[in-house]
Amino acid sequence: MGRCWPNPAVGCVIVKDERIVGRGWTQPGGRPHAEPVALAQAGAAAAGATAYVTLEPCAHHGQTPPCAEALIAAKVARVVVAVEDSDARVSGRGLAMLRDAGIDVTTGVLADEAARDLQGFFLKTDLGRPFLTLKLASSLDGRIATATGESQWITGPEARREVHAMRMRHDAVMVGGGTARADDPSLTVRGLGVAHQPVRVVVSRRLDMPLMSNLARTAKDIPVWVAHGPDADSTLLRTWRDIGAELLPCNLDGAHVSPVAVLNALGQKGITRVFCEGGGALAASLLGADLVDELLTFSAGMVLGAEGHPAIGALGVERLSAAPRFELQSQRVVGADVMTVWHRLEPH
Amino acid sequence: MGRCWPNPAVGCVIVKDERIVGRGWTQPGGRPHAEPVALAQAGAAAAGATAYVTLEPCAHHGQTPPCAEALIAAKVARVVVAVEDSDARVSGRGLAMLRDAGIDVTTGVLADEAARDLQGFFLKTDLGRPFLTLKLASSLDGRIATATGESQWITGPEARREVHAMRMRHDAVMVGGGTARADDPSLTVRGLGVAHQPVRVVVSRRLDMPLMSNLARTAKDIPVWVAHGPDADSTLLRTWRDIGAELLPCNLDGAHVSPVAVLNALGQKGITRVFCEGGGALAASLLGADLVDELLTFSAGMVLGAEGHPAIGALGVERLSAAPRFELQSQRVVGADVMTVWHRLEPH
Repeated sequence: MGRCWPNPAVGCVIVKDERIVGRGWTQPGGRPHAEPVALAQAGAAAAGATAYVTLEPCAHHGQTPPCAEALIAAKVARVVVAVEDSDARVSGRGLAMLRDAGIDVTTGVLADEAARDLQGFFLKTDLGRPFLTLKLASSLDGRIATATGESQWITGPEARREVHAMRMRHDAVMVGGGTARADDPSLTVRGLGVAHQPVRVVVSRRLDMPLMSNLARTAKDIPVWVAHGPDADSTLLRTWRDIGAELLPCNLDGAHVSPVAVLNALGQKGITRVFCEGGGALAASLLGADLVDELLTFSAGMVLGAEGHPAIGALGVERLSAAPRFELQSQRVVGADVMTVWHRLEPH
Repeated sequence: MGRCWPNPAVGCVIVKDERIVGRGWTQPGGRPHAEPVALAQAGAAAAGATAYVTLEPCAHHGQTPPCAEALIAAKVARVVVAVEDSDARVSGRGLAMLRDAGIDVTTGVLADEAARDLQGFFLKTDLGRPFLTLKLASSLDGRIATATGESQWITGPEARREVHAMRMRHDAVMVGGGTARADDPSLTVRGLGVAHQPVRVVVSRRLDMPLMSNLARTAKDIPVWVAHGPDADSTLLRTWRDIGAELLPCNLDGAHVSPVAVLNALGQKGITRVFCEGGGALAASLLGADLVDELLTFSAGMVLGAEGHPAIGALGVERLSAAPRFELQSQRVVGADVMTVWHRLEPH
């Protein structure tokens, strides 16, 4: 996850006589797919074996030959698929190819779990936008900084390490311009022994961010994409492009860059999973547009009071019935902090 | 707990030949103490037995004869005490009486656990103020109501039931005047099959609360104590006294009733454990005065945004290093919500 966009992160295991003879997963950049990797490992042992795969094997000739064909050529006897593809080029056709070749096909095994892992890919295919995780790291009273702007550090080193691991499992990390200005973040994955970095996205209507910032200074080495409004200064736009940033022009929604436009732009670029780290204004904008699929909170054992900066900005919610709602998935202690994971509650 | 103030909630078990022959605990109202209840149950079997007791047996003649004498009279062979009393009339003297009578005395067994249970009694004895638990029930972004004041219900029925159980284990339940006006709470224990009710305390500088409120209308049946400032209107004071409320005059700290004065007044009345349920201004006042011993949060899976009412009001914290800090004790899922329990982190 986080390394094979625009393709889905698929896994495949080939089992023969109750032993695993091949394992594969989508490789960095999205190719090869999981099935050919597992088949190559299995070699001749694939004949008569069962292939377990989290997503329906592809059926179309793209930059790689179809995986359904590869499974047929390898003479596997049975294919067990967790979830069917929603891509119109594949949906059902991969399964049909396998069945036509006389392969025994089972579907829907652990479908919910696989669908969750693949949700970014499905959302991109179906709605044109990536899966969005919103992270809030705050005091017990939901504050992300003191009135004077001090925010480092509210949560502890264990929580921050967990955040780096989360960045790694997303294709892109995103912050608002205010956070980019206030915190001067790098938004890179550090301390985990990984070389791969997610794309760094800043949402800033006017692109008014310092050119000496960490993001600006490293834009040539690690991608920085800037989602800006139509009224950003053209000199600023050119400057950011010159220092290596990619520009994503977006329309406005009120006074802010439209969050729908930002996510659609990211989806068009092939991004399947986005990790938003605030600040309060961008978080509110995404929540208000019902774009937050997963909400993560880290709560630290301190209180900052009402003058502190809120984790979520103004939402315009007057009635409890209008509040964006989430369902608890898990909660655990991380160092001295408490982490909770919530998923969007679909309206009935 | 919550029923024997001004006395501590003590437990006693008497064991003879590896069998429990007597159990007792401090009775409602604080008398009889745990030891005579257990001794009465044990009868003649107490002779030669071991008595386990959470607090050093009392040594002074108060409204009951000293428990140390009762243990001696019953001819117990050994007494195991979790924690020594800090009351000057008892401290060490109960143990000395037992030892002088030839009884084998062991102390300090599970002392931390017992000290935690008895902390309200110790705080009242040592500092003159009760143990204070502050409960916050909020959205994921720390809001206790929408901008329009809608607050019922943010957390679910399971969390509210848990709150009733918590009220039951405290001597008094306390809210600020703003919450009393906005929510018109009863602050009673309901749905748990208990008849006993905690004292209900409202902190209101000017006593400007409706006389048709639930608290006012039930003040004759279940105690209502009103902590007010020196400038409260004398007619209002008389009216509240006439409807059955007890008045606790307190001095001011800035524009608010002094939280130290409130807790001292409660301590003087014999209250050992207070459960504060907000609102934001009273919570901030207590936190600012470093009076919160335990902080409980219930977080519901919704977000209300920055216009919502904050769980904790203005604190005047400019630097993270000045923020009141707490240490996680436990966390668990309660219905659809997450509950966390934090204890004050003593400064180093």
